[in-house]
Amino acid sequence: MHEGFDLSPPFFELGPKAYLYGRGVLELAKAADRIGRRYQVRILFTPQYVDIPLVAHETGYIHVFAQHMDSIPIGRGIGSVLPEALREAGAVGVLLNHAEKRLSLSEINRTIKRADEVGLATLVCADTPEEAAALAHLAPNIILAEPPELIGSSQTGVTGRDYVARINELIRSIDPRIRVLHSAGISGPQDVADIVSMGAEATGCTSAVIKAENPAAMLEAMIKAMREAWDKTRS
Amino acid sequence: MHEGFDLSPPFFELGPKAYLYGRGVLELAKAADRIGRRYQVRILFTPQYVDIPLVAHETGYIHVFAQHMDSIPIGRGIGSVLPEALREAGAVGVLLNHAEKRLSLSEINRTIKRADEVGLATLVCADTPEEAAALAHLAPNIILAEPPELIGSSQTGVTGRDYVARINELIRSIDPRIRVLHSAGISGPQDVADIVSMGAEATGCTSAVIKAENPAAMLEAMIKAMREAWDKTRS
Amino acid sequence: MHEGFDLSPPFFELGPKAYLYGRGVLELAKAADRIGRRYQVRILFTPQYVDIPLVAHETGYIHVFAQHMDSIPIGRGIGSVLPEALREAGAVGVLLNHAEKRLSLSEINRTIKRADEVGLATLVCADTPEEAAALAHLAPNIILAEPPELIGSSQTGVTGRDYVARINELIRSIDPRIRVLHSAGISGPQDVADIVSMGAEATGCTSAVIKAENPAAMLEAMIKAMREAWDKTRS
Amino acid sequence: MHEGFDLSPPFFELGPKAYLYGRGVLELAKAADRIGRRYQVRILFTPQYVDIPLVAHETGYIHVFAQHMDSIPIGRGIGSVLPEALREAGAVGVLLNHAEKRLSLSEINRTIKRADEVGLATLVCADTPEEAAALAHLAPNIILAEPPELIGSSQTGVTGRDYVARINELIRSIDPRIRVLHSAGISGPQDVADIVSMGAEATGCTSAVIKAENPAAMLEAMIKAMREAWDKTRS
Repeated sequence: MHEGFDLSPPFFELGPKAYLYGRGVLELAKAADRIGRRYQVRILFTPQYVDIPLVAHETGYIHVFAQHMDSIPIGRGIGSVLPEALREAGAVGVLLNHAEKRLSLSEINRTIKRADEVGLATLVCADTPEEAAALAHLAPNIILAEPPELIGSSQTGVTGRDYVARINELIRSIDPRIRVLHSAGISGPQDVADIVSMGAEATGCTSAVIKAENPAAMLEAMIKAMREAWDKTRS
Repeated sequence: MHEGFDLSPPFFELGPKAYLYGRGVLELAKAADRIGRRYQVRILFTPQYVDIPLVAHETGYIHVFAQHMDSIPIGRGIGSVLPEALREAGAVGVLLNHAEKRLSLSEINRTIKRADEVGLATLVCADTPEEAAALAHLAPNIILAEPPELIGSSQTGVTGRDYVARINELIRSIDPRIRVLHSAGISGPQDVADIVSMGAEATGCTSAVIKAENPAAMLEAMIKAMREAWDKTRS
Repeated sequence: MHEGFDLSPPFFELGPKAYLYGRGVLELAKAADRIGRRYQVRILFTPQYVDIPLVAHETGYIHVFAQHMDSIPIGRGIGSVLPEALREAGAVGVLLNHAEKRLSLSEINRTIKRADEVGLATLVCADTPEEAAALAHLAPNIILAEPPELIGSSQTGVTGRDYVARINELIRSIDPRIRVLHSAGISGPQDVADIVSMGAEATGCTSAVIKAENPAAMLEAMIKAMREAWDKTRS
Repeated sequence: MHEGFDLSPPFFELGPKAYLYGRGVLELAKAADRIGRRYQVRILFTPQYVDIPLVAHETGYIHVFAQHMDSIPIGRGIGSVLPEALREAGAVGVLLNHAEKRLSLSEINRTIKRADEVGLATLVCADTPEEAAALAHLAPNIILAEPPELIGSSQTGVTGRDYVARINELIRSIDPRIRVLHSAGISGPQDVADIVSMGAEATGCTSAVIKAENPAAMLEAMIKAMREAWDKTRS
């Protein structure tokens, strides 16, 4: 865990994956920066590697995370992503072990240690409650829990509600410093409000924002819903 | 093959791998830019992904190549390197299949096609003469032939001499448009002069430059040796 | 190329993948053995690793191939498939680089050399004509050409006809000793007859046999069609 | 966890990796079978896949484990190791995530579930105490803890002693049903006695046995030492 990383809930992860790049991703990053500041919701934003420097330079409120990095030390490793290079380019954290970029257990462990060493926060993905519990022993800053069975389903049912609380408690019992982001097929503002009201302090989205007719407007609606649900349930 | 890529010999690949990043890599890139222009030797320069935009922006003569990319289309693919993003960030080409980042045969094929599509030149590594011949059927812009048995050996012997000519002819017989870069443990200016005099129109280096007391001075000595050997043997 | 491997056309690859194992795969292997002998069509049969010894012991006419192997030497390598172990277990060859088990170009090269060394024939998969040409430089015994665009299509059209002949000529021009197996969504005896009449000396199948109500009967119909088409077009 | 798997301590893992195969591995397996029975120490034996059927058939006391398997269901997957095929071939368990065959966290999770489903015990490797704790949430039958810092060191020091107990307690606090195998550069009978006296209920070895002038004699000396140390410290 990078202990210097300060992050107050509620927060939101917006992942442009390989959908956006260059001017397109910069425009969305600037909108996210403005929206996050307005609602006081910190947005973790994960552009393509080459877009990290400009996005970091042109924004001030969002947290720029890389989509992946390697645990290699300075030296050889053509094609790898060096932790020190990310840091100097302006990233403040890194996403690890997403379903589209799986890592071995020992590589996750080594990469979290490297991130701690260079001062990058870690956001590590888990498929299931038991994988989330396993990852909690490796002390990342944030665990992104994305239960496959909730994806595409309505999260307002009793099962979903139990699920969020159960994962939160499980992780808290292992390491209470770890924050938990619950991602589960968020398709609009109501989903965001629902998952926050179930106990989530963070959630995230890719396609519902990227593919919206007006991505900035959709993002703003979600962030506004998050702020309102948070203020209602946590005060 | 990206047909719009124009590259006259002699040329040189300088690969900082994960040794340099940020200000350090920018300084070396600027030196390479100045040295390449002075001796009219084009240098292919492969920084970390995040350093591509600044290196491309601050130089004008060197060719900025990425160390790797993926064949994915615009869309999903967290942690992948999107061809379009490299191009917009200022890269003009990409290194593929280095010994530190092996690709399957079909992924090499798909990635060369993607590079052609977005307008990036391809520099693809081969271990052996038969792998170089194999790659020639996939029409990259440049094949980097790095025979393991020559690494660390003296290339001035008869075997080495035969080797360079034999690979050149083999590749030319399959696709005469492909340029060939012969890399083989280049440790100083004499090695560069030797390999050019054996028939190579390009070579390259990482550690002998990066680890030199004065990297820019070592690079300049190599590039000067290349220009002189080229002018002597090709005119 | 394992030069001691003798294989006369026509021949046929039957791949049970991970559909069959134990008694089920043994039963199909025995049927293939009987059918192959009856029509004098050699069948290459690729069971799960653990089923190689029994299948090899209980059959005499089919050629038992492993589904994959590693290029490692005798020594370390937990979870790897050692070439010498396959050979001693009764395999006479190995399938490499299938779409479900891609290998890097240099690993294909090393593995073919290891197969030659221990005396195993190699059957290496290619997606496209240019990949088939590339592989021909690595001298496998057989190239399995499986053009994605033909899969599921009717092969009797002019394009398909050209395609088979074009791949055969391309590979022959590089190394005339290599045999070519054309696989392309074979779904019944007519497809087998068609592809043989277009110039293929070998083809193969998995799902149309495995999922047939009576796999042995479907296999026999295909092998009979292959023999008849071969005798008609090659005499 | 495959609940039907019964294993009383002390036990020992003997891994021939890719050092032995065919007649050679069968001979060692038979010796292990005789020695294990004599000293009532269960030996987990992990041959090459193709050697599983014969080793399982010719022995009765040792537990035959595969070196790896895949989580795939019956169906496609050329080159994969199907769980059902291992089981029918006579394996009773499977080794997973060895340093020579790393798996992603989610693949470990899925593969343990598949093993439970078909009735195979799981022996899963961890590099560090935190990785061992992580794996305990996935409920394998056995965790193989192989701390890199102990490999090649003397385990009789205070640090080593603490280490064994600390890992045991950590895993027991998460799931007391999981057995723990401590492996750490065992080079002879004294190392075995030492680690058992430090609290280990299981250990294992590859090279010190395989490379001994007389492997069966070395194995017997280790197993005898294990039995004696166990009887002295546990009664």
